[in-house]
Amino acid sequence: MNQMTPAPKPDLRALFDPKSIAVIGASNDTTKIPGMTLESLLKHGVDVPVCPVHPKLEEVQGLKAYPTVEAAAQAMGAAPELAIIVIPARAVPDMLESCAQVGVRAAIIITSGFAEEQGEEGAALQARVVEIIARHGLAVLGPNAQGYANFARALCCTFSPAVRLATDPLIPEWCEDGGRISVVAQSGALGFSLYDTGRLKELPYRFVVTTGNEAGVSAFDVVDHLLDEGGTQVFVMFLEGIRDAARFREVAERALRAGKPLVVAKVGMSAAAERSAASHTGALAGSWRANKAMFDAYGVTLVESHEELIDVAAAFMVNRHRLPKGRGIGIPTSSGGAGGWTADGCAAAGLEVPELEPEARARIDKFLPPYGSSINPVDGTAQAIGLIGNSELTRLTALSERVHGIVGVTSAINAAAFLKEGENFPRVGLGLEKPICYWSYTRPSRETYALFAKSGWALSTNLRHSTRAMAAMCAYAEAKERFRPPLPADAPPAPGEIETMTEREAKAWLHGSGVGGAPGGLATSAGEAATLAAALGRPAALKIQSPDIPHKTEAGGVALGVGPEAAAAEFDAMLARVKSRAPDAAIEGVLVEPMAPAGAQMLLGITRDPLFGPMLLVGAGGIYAEVLDDVALSPLLDDEAAALRLLQGLKTWPLLDGARGQAKADVPALVTLMLALCRFVSDNAARIEDIDLNPVVAHEMGQGVSVLDALVLRRAG
Amino acid sequence: MNQMTPAPKPDLRALFDPKSIAVIGASNDTTKIPGMTLESLLKHGVDVPVCPVHPKLEEVQGLKAYPTVEAAAQAMGAAPELAIIVIPARAVPDMLESCAQVGVRAAIIITSGFAEEQGEEGAALQARVVEIIARHGLAVLGPNAQGYANFARALCCTFSPAVRLATDPLIPEWCEDGGRISVVAQSGALGFSLYDTGRLKELPYRFVVTTGNEAGVSAFDVVDHLLDEGGTQVFVMFLEGIRDAARFREVAERALRAGKPLVVAKVGMSAAAERSAASHTGALAGSWRANKAMFDAYGVTLVESHEELIDVAAAFMVNRHRLPKGRGIGIPTSSGGAGGWTADGCAAAGLEVPELEPEARARIDKFLPPYGSSINPVDGTAQAIGLIGNSELTRLTALSERVHGIVGVTSAINAAAFLKEGENFPRVGLGLEKPICYWSYTRPSRETYALFAKSGWALSTNLRHSTRAMAAMCAYAEAKERFRPPLPADAPPAPGEIETMTEREAKAWLHGSGVGGAPGGLATSAGEAATLAAALGRPAALKIQSPDIPHKTEAGGVALGVGPEAAAAEFDAMLARVKSRAPDAAIEGVLVEPMAPAGAQMLLGITRDPLFGPMLLVGAGGIYAEVLDDVALSPLLDDEAAALRLLQGLKTWPLLDGARGQAKADVPALVTLMLALCRFVSDNAARIEDIDLNPVVAHEMGQGVSVLDALVLRRAG
Repeated sequence: MNQMTPAPKPDLRALFDPKSIAVIGASNDTTKIPGMTLESLLKHGVDVPVCPVHPKLEEVQGLKAYPTVEAAAQAMGAAPELAIIVIPARAVPDMLESCAQVGVRAAIIITSGFAEEQGEEGAALQARVVEIIARHGLAVLGPNAQGYANFARALCCTFSPAVRLATDPLIPEWCEDGGRISVVAQSGALGFSLYDTGRLKELPYRFVVTTGNEAGVSAFDVVDHLLDEGGTQVFVMFLEGIRDAARFREVAERALRAGKPLVVAKVGMSAAAERSAASHTGALAGSWRANKAMFDAYGVTLVESHEELIDVAAAFMVNRHRLPKGRGIGIPTSSGGAGGWTADGCAAAGLEVPELEPEARARIDKFLPPYGSSINPVDGTAQAIGLIGNSELTRLTALSERVHGIVGVTSAINAAAFLKEGENFPRVGLGLEKPICYWSYTRPSRETYALFAKSGWALSTNLRHSTRAMAAMCAYAEAKERFRPPLPADAPPAPGEIETMTEREAKAWLHGSGVGGAPGGLATSAGEAATLAAALGRPAALKIQSPDIPHKTEAGGVALGVGPEAAAAEFDAMLARVKSRAPDAAIEGVLVEPMAPAGAQMLLGITRDPLFGPMLLVGAGGIYAEVLDDVALSPLLDDEAAALRLLQGLKTWPLLDGARGQAKADVPALVTLMLALCRFVSDNAARIEDIDLNPVVAHEMGQGVSVLDALVLRRAG
Repeated sequence: MNQMTPAPKPDLRALFDPKSIAVIGASNDTTKIPGMTLESLLKHGVDVPVCPVHPKLEEVQGLKAYPTVEAAAQAMGAAPELAIIVIPARAVPDMLESCAQVGVRAAIIITSGFAEEQGEEGAALQARVVEIIARHGLAVLGPNAQGYANFARALCCTFSPAVRLATDPLIPEWCEDGGRISVVAQSGALGFSLYDTGRLKELPYRFVVTTGNEAGVSAFDVVDHLLDEGGTQVFVMFLEGIRDAARFREVAERALRAGKPLVVAKVGMSAAAERSAASHTGALAGSWRANKAMFDAYGVTLVESHEELIDVAAAFMVNRHRLPKGRGIGIPTSSGGAGGWTADGCAAAGLEVPELEPEARARIDKFLPPYGSSINPVDGTAQAIGLIGNSELTRLTALSERVHGIVGVTSAINAAAFLKEGENFPRVGLGLEKPICYWSYTRPSRETYALFAKSGWALSTNLRHSTRAMAAMCAYAEAKERFRPPLPADAPPAPGEIETMTEREAKAWLHGSGVGGAPGGLATSAGEAATLAAALGRPAALKIQSPDIPHKTEAGGVALGVGPEAAAAEFDAMLARVKSRAPDAAIEGVLVEPMAPAGAQMLLGITRDPLFGPMLLVGAGGIYAEVLDDVALSPLLDDEAAALRLLQGLKTWPLLDGARGQAKADVPALVTLMLALCRFVSDNAARIEDIDLNPVVAHEMGQGVSVLDALVLRRAG
């Protein structure tokens, strides 16, 4: 191949919707992975030519086998579009090269023993695979992947027992559009268990894709392709590490704009999980806070368990076209106790349970016995539900203008109770303009699950999953409504050394780009200090300037509230102090600035995440910053409203907002400073390692903000 | 009956283990509750005489029926011990009276239409029932209860479909001791659904008791009786409201000392839930914080969903004899991704996932392939687990001295994988001295559930339930170890009016009982103020004293840092200010106290909970108290260590503990003050409505604390 020819673009259509398949390594032993993989394809009636490739066998599982992929291609009349490779790791790179030479466009490498292994050999093998993929522009899942299932075609390119041993139809009978939920998982075991568990709840899956070591196609590449494919309504993702921040941002934005929620489990909240990810797939977990901030910005829902993952995805599936327009929840129930408990769950999830207005109550009261209640929770009691059904009680509750969504309680052990409601059940479920999430305190039969899913009612057996699904839908609706892309921060760090700028240099650089005020004057003698101080017309702050002294206070290099008459003496005293404590520091002089008026102490900064690059940090300043850990992280913002929300999310926000009769701080000025800083950093992303504006004092409303100190670590560019 | 004879003690043995039963109202219509109740008894082969009572029918469900309870008693040769009453509400009180007259000792009133109804009639009926119960000393469940099931005797005194329609044996076949988990629920629907859901996980229930309106026997009476009965190992409770704080304390203490955990769902975290409880059973939910504080003190585990209730109870069942001795968790897994995610769950639950020590790793490494890891999570990979089994991987992980408990991950869809491990599986499960909680990312078969339960392995399908069960066991072990009964606070409030004491009166009263220092001198003239101020030897605080001015600052009644020369003028100025703002206030004078040295501002107080009586409140003082809501509540403590832990739980604890190089505060003095206050309040519980010591300044270590202001609301006694 001519090295100058650019590699073609990977063809994910050939990977996920192939017209012909070779299974390389397929055998007759269906207790081993190579045999299982072919068995799985055949069992579900693969609808395109499949050709086993095996060095010795002439027939495998009833199909004629060929010794090489070339021979197979010749026999098939054309190269197979997809090669599933299940041979020893050492033989994989050469085989992949052969496939590419023959014209194969896509591959699944199920074999493990690559980057996930300790030691050099696996890493070297993976590097070879990466190189071959790039050179030929192949679409490759794995290595160390369990493959995928494309349920719309009953195409099971995987050895997973979840589909290989499946006795149920792969897609529930009630669903006729080829499935609506797709799983994209970096862990094979978890990926297919999400199918297995959700299938028992009669949920319609479209794709399960496991990406393994991601030498070629990444989880977000898969989502991107499935957005093109179009049939997926909700994505369920299990992520250990994100490899490419720009690709995440691009695909997450596409999904958000398309109204296709990403419901994600992300490993890596804890140090032990980071250890685990590093040893398991060689992926960098990245900082948890940065991940969370990115997910929030793009409306990605984070969940805590695989059962919650499924329940939240199911809730989005039936409700995504009628997301809540507010946080007021109506709770129809037949059990008073369970209703109260659901209200607790709503409160814990940040939802509200308003008392219904009199008109709404009157509509319900007509049907209630004296021991029922229409206040909300709406305790219909078994009697009223027997009379008007869950459907009608739900509809009447949703009629309240204070209600934006329904979290109902029922006992769904038998479908009969709901079948009895006839056409009303799907009419309300599919027709209501407000989202419906029910939970059952008994375990629903599969018939009940199917009835609920096809009738537009989300059903869970976990109260907290239902309330958190509703809260997730609120957050998603808000994120979708408010979304403005963060500023780009994708430039890789410049290769130069990291230099510590002095406060004066840093302030001057920032000020030149509209971030903060100009630095004060630099005194290099006691006389200059006196002159500069006198010119201020108010007491001065004197601060030593040296690239070798990032922490001025500790070095004796700060004097506050210095009057003009004392400035010269203070200059001399400071230099003596600093020289005794840091004798080798190169000293540029002493910065003379006016003392700032009082206000709320904040900190504002930029921190470079290893994955996502520079991110904005804002928090309470002073001693409470450390004690309370009251900081918020965000991608670089270009959006006043988002900056304001970031501040409002701080524990100490009430102090800025005039708690206990204090003056309100100049939040608009603080927001302006935040946005200016973000623009500056986006423009200089390669060079910014770290910025720490601390403290930033937010004065009274209208009085602006003062950046009292600035520390910048900059890469030579 | 002679009114002077004291009523006999309720006989809960007759209620829960009766020798004969009358079903009053039983009919042949098994689609209605009265018929269902008898059907349920008969279906499961009730082992004592059962007699239907019906005004008209001569035979009910194949049994001879009698028109009255008197006739039934005559026919049976003695009064039935237990009467199950399923007749219209209006007829219940007379029937209960008749039962008592005949000699019936216990009853279940299934009928609803009592205190849970809106309106006067139900309340009046319940009042009559309460009176009859008290007069005769009856043991009565209900009204509005679903009855109970005593599974050890297959005795199902309930119409609940969960047992009436049960096709499985009531107790799993693997369990031969009559069941180990008992459910005590104030909601009938929830109570039996907990059985239903747990039975599908092959858990062995001993009793399910639903208490309804609790006109007689309360949920805690039931627990008390079942502690006597002895067979229950873990209690699962669903509570809407606690009616009797003293009874809760008594029974919770008994259960804790017996090592029988109470795992509780409590409705009432939110305002809407309180509304619901009030309208549903007429119970006061009480303050959520007070409930939580009480539960913490008595080692009661609170959970968030009915599935978590079951999973946590199951974990206690197999692990309660080997509670964790620390928070270090070992995570054996066959899936790296799931292992990392489990580590995240541990971190979120306050557990730790330590790296294993080299010796422990070496023992594991022998069996690992190169893509496994023994660091922790211990990723055994499918290969090592195939080689040595889950049992051995778990045992080797638990051998680490850094590991105090196991939270493992597996796929438990088929029992075969674990049956293959033969005797090793129960040997490790039952023999290990550290607790074991596993979660499965596939849905276990019932065979797997049974195998795990009988072999001493807890099994859940929810990662977070497993990690929270382990954390709950840690907290329970600590509570059990540390338990000292809080001081009594059960005196009902004295009937007198509530009076506001002046700061000087309050301080004098408290000081007289060893709480805080003596108040300063009271100046009633400018001259006295000057004299008192001069005697202090340091600047003074001047504070107006009036029972009509609880908030002195707002009334202009506080002057701080007043030198002796300014005291007289300040006295006159203060009186003028106060008189202009509060012209009608009765003024006793001006308190002259020395300004206190600096320190950490705290608040210390007593708040009267409507259910639990006076409780201790401690928190950060100053503006942050309100903004951060940084307060902790506790029963009245008699235990230095518990008081210290309360302080350590505050968000701002680091400020007391010398964060950022600040001086450590005199925490021992603060603890002494807390305990003195608690003793004082316990001694005066009837008269204390509210105490607010704010601020209390904790000076540097060794310098003690100063109570700068004291507000006491006292009932005339």
